[in-house]
Amino acid sequence: MNERRFTVQAIGTARTPFASTAQIPRGRGATHTAEGVLEFRPELEAGLDDIDGFSHLYVVWVFDRADGYDLRVTPPTDTRPHGVFATHAPRRPNPIALTIVRLLRRDGPSLHVAGVDMLDGTPILDVKPCTSSVPAAELRRGWLAAAEREHAD
Amino acid sequence: MNERRFTVQAIGTARTPFASTAQIPRGRGATHTAEGVLEFRPELEAGLDDIDGFSHLYVVWVFDRADGYDLRVTPPTDTRPHGVFATHAPRRPNPIALTIVRLLRRDGPSLHVAGVDMLDGTPILDVKPCTSSVPAAELRRGWLAAAEREHAD
Repeated sequence: MNERRFTVQAIGTARTPFASTAQIPRGRGATHTAEGVLEFRPELEAGLDDIDGFSHLYVVWVFDRADGYDLRVTPPTDTRPHGVFATHAPRRPNPIALTIVRLLRRDGPSLHVAGVDMLDGTPILDVKPCTSSVPAAELRRGWLAAAEREHAD
Repeated sequence: MNERRFTVQAIGTARTPFASTAQIPRGRGATHTAEGVLEFRPELEAGLDDIDGFSHLYVVWVFDRADGYDLRVTPPTDTRPHGVFATHAPRRPNPIALTIVRLLRRDGPSLHVAGVDMLDGTPILDVKPCTSSVPAAELRRGWLAAAEREHAD
């Protein structure tokens, strides 16, 4: 079985309005509209050429202030536990996060974006363009949809 | 500037029909319908509880057979170079890949999925549910859309 280890290195840092996790909107009905800046290491700037044409980007980042993990977690959206891989919980076997942000503008090695949900100072591992989208009609949202129905006022 | 390093470990292995990169459909008009299996390390199986309810999953994996990187790359979809972060090219500062797959069924610690585009034996770092989608009307696809128009027959 594959248990290989790999070392990754931050390509930059996210600057966001969030100094503590309590400030980050999460759970049912949370909207992620906060603006922030993805500051790349200056020597990587050429890697951003032509990124301006994309409206949405995937940001792969590190939950660097999460510690350890549980295989079953109760997310803020629900009162029942679920397998960690069926959630976006931070305490996971690899503390890797994924956020879709909207690109507002590029300023040299910095990307100004909307929709940040990570702490200020978070290390970024990768940015990729969103080039396709799952049609909403095809998306089944499992326990999350059930929790939303159940807890709807 | 953030240059921190992190160590990640495979949570499992992708079994796919692709023994070499030449077999993987890519570039303009490529469709990813191949089926494969994400085999999790047995001790992580409880982390998959309730994943069955989701139709689509993000798979975060390692381009473990890529070596080094270039900041500007010419993707198979185009004849011009672009910044690596404006592409999904494998040779990137952190060789991390992201694929959206459709979940067919779970079989214990294995997820049968459609839409794999990684080599057989590829280490998997994380799986997360797709819980939202960028509306197609809002998605701008930069150089990729331009290349598709230009090279259309």
